[in-house]
Amino acid sequence: MATQCSSFRFELFSSDGPARRGRFHTARGIVETPVFMPVGTQATVKAVTPETLLGLDARIILSNTYHLHMRPGEKLIASLGGLHRFMSWDRPVLTDSGGYQVFSLARLMKINDDGLIFSSHLDGSRHLLTPEKAVEIQEDLGSDIMMCLDECVAYPSPREYVEASVGRTSCWAERCLRARKGPNALFGIVQGGVHHDLRRRSAEETASLPFDGIAVGGLSVGEGHDLMMEVLDATAPWLPADKPRYLMGVGTPRDIVEAVARGVDMFDCVLPTRNARNGMLFTRRGRITLKQARFREDPNPPDPGCGCYTCRNFSLAYLRHLHTSREILGSMLATIHNLYFYLELMSDIRHSIEEKNFNDFRKQVKEIYDD
Amino acid sequence: MATQCSSFRFELFSSDGPARRGRFHTARGIVETPVFMPVGTQATVKAVTPETLLGLDARIILSNTYHLHMRPGEKLIASLGGLHRFMSWDRPVLTDSGGYQVFSLARLMKINDDGLIFSSHLDGSRHLLTPEKAVEIQEDLGSDIMMCLDECVAYPSPREYVEASVGRTSCWAERCLRARKGPNALFGIVQGGVHHDLRRRSAEETASLPFDGIAVGGLSVGEGHDLMMEVLDATAPWLPADKPRYLMGVGTPRDIVEAVARGVDMFDCVLPTRNARNGMLFTRRGRITLKQARFREDPNPPDPGCGCYTCRNFSLAYLRHLHTSREILGSMLATIHNLYFYLELMSDIRHSIEEKNFNDFRKQVKEIYDD
Repeated sequence: MATQCSSFRFELFSSDGPARRGRFHTARGIVETPVFMPVGTQATVKAVTPETLLGLDARIILSNTYHLHMRPGEKLIASLGGLHRFMSWDRPVLTDSGGYQVFSLARLMKINDDGLIFSSHLDGSRHLLTPEKAVEIQEDLGSDIMMCLDECVAYPSPREYVEASVGRTSCWAERCLRARKGPNALFGIVQGGVHHDLRRRSAEETASLPFDGIAVGGLSVGEGHDLMMEVLDATAPWLPADKPRYLMGVGTPRDIVEAVARGVDMFDCVLPTRNARNGMLFTRRGRITLKQARFREDPNPPDPGCGCYTCRNFSLAYLRHLHTSREILGSMLATIHNLYFYLELMSDIRHSIEEKNFNDFRKQVKEIYDD
Repeated sequence: MATQCSSFRFELFSSDGPARRGRFHTARGIVETPVFMPVGTQATVKAVTPETLLGLDARIILSNTYHLHMRPGEKLIASLGGLHRFMSWDRPVLTDSGGYQVFSLARLMKINDDGLIFSSHLDGSRHLLTPEKAVEIQEDLGSDIMMCLDECVAYPSPREYVEASVGRTSCWAERCLRARKGPNALFGIVQGGVHHDLRRRSAEETASLPFDGIAVGGLSVGEGHDLMMEVLDATAPWLPADKPRYLMGVGTPRDIVEAVARGVDMFDCVLPTRNARNGMLFTRRGRITLKQARFREDPNPPDPGCGCYTCRNFSLAYLRHLHTSREILGSMLATIHNLYFYLELMSDIRHSIEEKNFNDFRKQVKEIYDD
């Protein structure tokens, strides 16, 4: 089984302990790592325009295959020139396989070695998702980085079940590689729950296949920060050093610096965007919640040292007013700020690795974000 | 009763029949007329940033005194430097008096010659709005153009009631002028329902007072386009030629060109912004509704000839997907387009008056927008 002619290329050029500073090349541009990918579930990063994302210098975003398959459908998107043209975003897009949403959002009817049978969260219609189908959908979308279909088990799950899911995930990984027809990059996914030996087995099996990158899945599903890091510690040694490592669905600022400290290169999470819409802002002094009465008359921006559009132009009192009044602009401005915070966090991480003082920076972040 | 030292100045420099081409000067900038003012009810034009409004070259916006008085309160806004700083908008703002929302949104408890007693739509708390209070609130907000408190009667209303409301409105107009303390411009409002003689009386009484401009109120309240125009015809001759004329809460593209044809200079309306959020777009080929299935696979922008951000970057299929998926970006992009349409409509009106072919343009608009 040979790697397809993906134009994807990863290079590492600096490190500070296990923390890695690299970049990957795609046909749609270069992405510096460690990187955070804003989440654009339904072909839009919620509450911001692509123009604003460019202004924030987001280099890559994630979109959700399950949602786009359900609505408007990958064939429609393909007929309109693919996901990038559809949403007017010409930088790279990573898509997940759709599997995670089948487990978390749809109603899963049946899982066997063939694939997943589920009913849609939108209209109850019945669908089959196989490894081959997951790749086909992602190729139709024109994803720059596709993810293998895997089985993400709940936490906690019986060891026997987790073990079976690791075997299934490895089997599906090979089928995804065989199903790939185009030049889109494809990442494998390591599962194994919280069992060190199963994580090692899954990592070794995934590493043996010609993927462009390796993801660690099945974490941030309720096991907690400490256990997540313990599992990462048990997984990282078995991941190939020359491929990017992507920790799926993670996380808080603390999660991110701790995962970078264990050699992770890529992240995605709804936290900055979802929390923004709920009135929660990330700042360099910690989280703040706009609904709090103490901001009622506060003339200061959320973070006086922040250079984002929101902090340069608006007071906490105004943002609180927008949030209280349920104004769309409140979601827009909070999203701009939180994405700026996350993208700047990653920029600071990259810089600190280059300067060999990542551990100092990591410690600073953990002092402010201790959960 | 002398005019206060308002820096407001209006000049007319061209006309085409009764249609007028002018501009007014305020301390915060020059506004070319005829002008459309986007509505920013709660200190935000819904779903767009001030930066985007500047990009659209909106020269003046309207904000609603009732809403801001209720939440967050004009004293809080004043303590933060006024409405402009609060919402980060340094071009002119016109505020209404709050009276209309007391009639339409709050629960009106009592109206007498002193003012209006009402209970808040937010928490049921009881409030008193007098002419003096309306001016005080607007001065606290730092409005560039304040509106007098008036009594807007429902349509239809008994003639006797309308007649009494005209007297009350004139009385309140004088009290507003006396209450004014600062340099903010102040406009009087003509009422009189659909009764020509009462409109004339109200216009003459309002015209006799040293206002900076004159509004025509009490229209677009259910009387229909034809009756609205008939009333405008009966009102316009009694309005002073040297002051700007503002038709409050109007309207559709047809309403606007027909009112310009009767000498109106200023408009505001929620139509472009509210309809945008409901998936209705104004185009040069007429209105379109995004929920329609015929746009499901349409690769074209809403209006191929339109230069707005939305039309330059997105297809009808994508906008329909956002609308169907209830994505915030759908409201944002539709709002940008509709405001662009309205502001360009006004620009075309101004140009056609200068070129003395306004009636041709008016006819074109009416062929497309016949309701």
